[in-house]
Amino acid sequence: MQNFISIADVQDMEALTNTALSIKKSPFGQADLGKHKTLGLLFLNPSLRTRMSTQKAAMNLGMQVMVLNIQEEGWKLEMQDGAVMNGTTVEHVKDAAAVMGLYCDIIGIRCFPGLVSKEADYGEVILKKFLQYCHQPIISLESATLHPLQSLADWMTIKENWNHSRKPKVVLTWAPHIKALPQAVPNSFSEWMCKADVDFTITHPPGYSLADSFTKGATIVQKQDLALQDADFIYIKNWSSYEEYGAMPTVNDNWLLSNEKLALTNNAKIMHCLPVRRNVEVTDTVLDSENSLILQQAENRVFAAQAVLQNILTNKVF
Amino acid sequence: MQNFISIADVQDMEALTNTALSIKKSPFGQADLGKHKTLGLLFLNPSLRTRMSTQKAAMNLGMQVMVLNIQEEGWKLEMQDGAVMNGTTVEHVKDAAAVMGLYCDIIGIRCFPGLVSKEADYGEVILKKFLQYCHQPIISLESATLHPLQSLADWMTIKENWNHSRKPKVVLTWAPHIKALPQAVPNSFSEWMCKADVDFTITHPPGYSLADSFTKGATIVQKQDLALQDADFIYIKNWSSYEEYGAMPTVNDNWLLSNEKLALTNNAKIMHCLPVRRNVEVTDTVLDSENSLILQQAENRVFAAQAVLQNILTNKVF
Amino acid sequence: MQNFISIADVQDMEALTNTALSIKKSPFGQADLGKHKTLGLLFLNPSLRTRMSTQKAAMNLGMQVMVLNIQEEGWKLEMQDGAVMNGTTVEHVKDAAAVMGLYCDIIGIRCFPGLVSKEADYGEVILKKFLQYCHQPIISLESATLHPLQSLADWMTIKENWNHSRKPKVVLTWAPHIKALPQAVPNSFSEWMCKADVDFTITHPPGYSLADSFTKGATIVQKQDLALQDADFIYIKNWSSYEEYGAMPTVNDNWLLSNEKLALTNNAKIMHCLPVRRNVEVTDTVLDSENSLILQQAENRVFAAQAVLQNILTNKVF
Repeated sequence: MQNFISIADVQDMEALTNTALSIKKSPFGQADLGKHKTLGLLFLNPSLRTRMSTQKAAMNLGMQVMVLNIQEEGWKLEMQDGAVMNGTTVEHVKDAAAVMGLYCDIIGIRCFPGLVSKEADYGEVILKKFLQYCHQPIISLESATLHPLQSLADWMTIKENWNHSRKPKVVLTWAPHIKALPQAVPNSFSEWMCKADVDFTITHPPGYSLADSFTKGATIVQKQDLALQDADFIYIKNWSSYEEYGAMPTVNDNWLLSNEKLALTNNAKIMHCLPVRRNVEVTDTVLDSENSLILQQAENRVFAAQAVLQNILTNKVF
Repeated sequence: MQNFISIADVQDMEALTNTALSIKKSPFGQADLGKHKTLGLLFLNPSLRTRMSTQKAAMNLGMQVMVLNIQEEGWKLEMQDGAVMNGTTVEHVKDAAAVMGLYCDIIGIRCFPGLVSKEADYGEVILKKFLQYCHQPIISLESATLHPLQSLADWMTIKENWNHSRKPKVVLTWAPHIKALPQAVPNSFSEWMCKADVDFTITHPPGYSLADSFTKGATIVQKQDLALQDADFIYIKNWSSYEEYGAMPTVNDNWLLSNEKLALTNNAKIMHCLPVRRNVEVTDTVLDSENSLILQQAENRVFAAQAVLQNILTNKVF
Repeated sequence: MQNFISIADVQDMEALTNTALSIKKSPFGQADLGKHKTLGLLFLNPSLRTRMSTQKAAMNLGMQVMVLNIQEEGWKLEMQDGAVMNGTTVEHVKDAAAVMGLYCDIIGIRCFPGLVSKEADYGEVILKKFLQYCHQPIISLESATLHPLQSLADWMTIKENWNHSRKPKVVLTWAPHIKALPQAVPNSFSEWMCKADVDFTITHPPGYSLADSFTKGATIVQKQDLALQDADFIYIKNWSSYEEYGAMPTVNDNWLLSNEKLALTNNAKIMHCLPVRRNVEVTDTVLDSENSLILQQAENRVFAAQAVLQNILTNKVF
């Protein structure tokens, strides 16, 4: 693997997931693999879970980690090629990315969407500039449209919790929220589930369709109640509208995931990438039930990141 | 030791202090004890001295350290169980604490009091939530009511500077300040001194009594001049009112610790936890005199933290 | 070397530069030299390049690194001796510097000029206080008047790109900018070039003379076109006025470094310390040409810092 930006970078999804699962059993088995290698973590948006789990993964491999919180530092990057930089941007991404590549062997980047321009966000402008100018492997720590480290951890978690011969039914359901959130987590989860050996259904209110390119192969069901029937896993997540980009069209039905909804399923396991707005997206009772996998997902973030780093470190010629 | 929140967590105060003193002589004697172990330092309030000394202590033991400055990151935690999270809090402490516990083997937390509600502060709400949900050993990096790492370093410092057979007279004296400060340092120092083999006196202006629960066994003297007589150690510290909670009742007398006050003592050693407002709490002349132990106290913070980490690492079954 | 504040701290400039160049060939040759040693990096002003390169250098030597961003933490230091600290400063530099010295074996400090008082800035008040109170070796990470780590990296870069027997002609040229910038980089570069085996010329518009103390031995040429003739290396950098301190006197001529200007030279190599305002200071065409050494300079920052740390670690009696 050269970069880890989307599932397209993964040659063998099952092999990568199995690596992550085996790292979980022995996290320090390759504690010298990253010796004298440096991971740079660049946050254009805040992060705690992703920062901690990725940092931990790198340290488990013996890597050094340097964290850069760009927003706090007020280091505004110019994205436009050829710009006359007489305004507020202080450094061109061309130079910033190249310099980071000189100091780090692998770069992780978090760059959220603005949720204003669909073209800019779905063009992944920032990420692409880093890919172009950085000359080192890039790992997405959640980009404008995808969050592959989360999806790998999610898929690990499903595999750990399924030991039947039949395919599990996995349902991604939209949930209410008070803010307009990105589509990155559902896009990414959908992309992975469409490649996985599962029966995958997405349900959401009118106006909340995800972009087709990520949902090819999924069954889209309008009615949540119908979608949840016989579900083995439910992934609960809010997202803002893709069609009416970044908006939050009014939702009439009650999409809060409660015990009554859970009763419709095949005693489904509950998944959420966290942070979760309790009793807005899903009730306490459901989240704190035996069915909940949310902490297992969070824990698996370490081993997902470690599998990706290990893969890159092993393949890369330094 | 499972946690280090107050002196109640310490089974043998003298053994712990002697461990700290012996670590000081050989700080790298256990440089592999913390291998593959991660210390998470969570700051809900700013810190430099505590962060640096605890980080250094962990590194001396071969631990990895991850620092989280929550306030900066704007990661507002919900503390109320059952809350419908449709407001400004973005994650419930229940989830945040549990996730941190998945990524770290030991957690240090700094959570200052609000100095508005005595009940909330003295209830140690935040600390207790982490103890409840985190599932890993917790070290207080100064809570609403106590600062045990400081007290351990203070007691080390007194022991290093006393080699007479009689008990030393230790005096904790209130000092002026321009802001309302917590009672955590004086509460904690008092708690430790009441258990130590010393003659312990507290002096403060009317309105500045500390909570009884921390001062049981101490001699309380109203007049500073009287309290300072024959003192071997003076601990100088401002705190706001406990009775009229968080207020700064007017003080008529001059409580600035100066050479004239020092002259009343048995050539007392001078202690302060830093940062100190020079010439407001205590004069330059006193702070910069041979009697001053302030840098020794600061230095001992490393070895106090290291003794606590070592104790937890040794006892804990990972 | 005891400190690294200016070239005056360097006993043998060529030996130090050769050490840096040889470290570049084998960056992990002394990976245990800094074992159990801690580098504290104190930023009173923001930094990314300097922080990353110095952190990397320390890690290459096996050192631990603790980063303190003082501005973010709101930890305002009192600089005045004898001050009655009843205002906004929360700790005296006397105590802060002494405590940092207890926790770190070497301290790096970044303290920019205010560009208001020439006396304060050129007196290097903050740096001198740390030198006075810290009791550990101090490395400048760019002070009010100098940036020696940059200059060492610059001189490395020139040496790597010159293999003729004659001296190279090195030209430092002022460049336009939209903000008033410090004189630290040009002062420092000038100081180093005046000691190096080069033919050194400085060119700038009227009103932008640097302080004599740093330019002794340099040829000062008013006309940029004339200065650039036969140049082998051009160092492009903006700075504000030293005479009319911190001001930006009007400049009539066009000082933007473009291909037309480059044509006047001996196919000169292009240098800049970054970040650069593209198409304001120098054109894209020039910066992205084969002549550009800007990334090499940035890369050499690691090895410059590593040479300095290695020198201090080797000489210091711990």
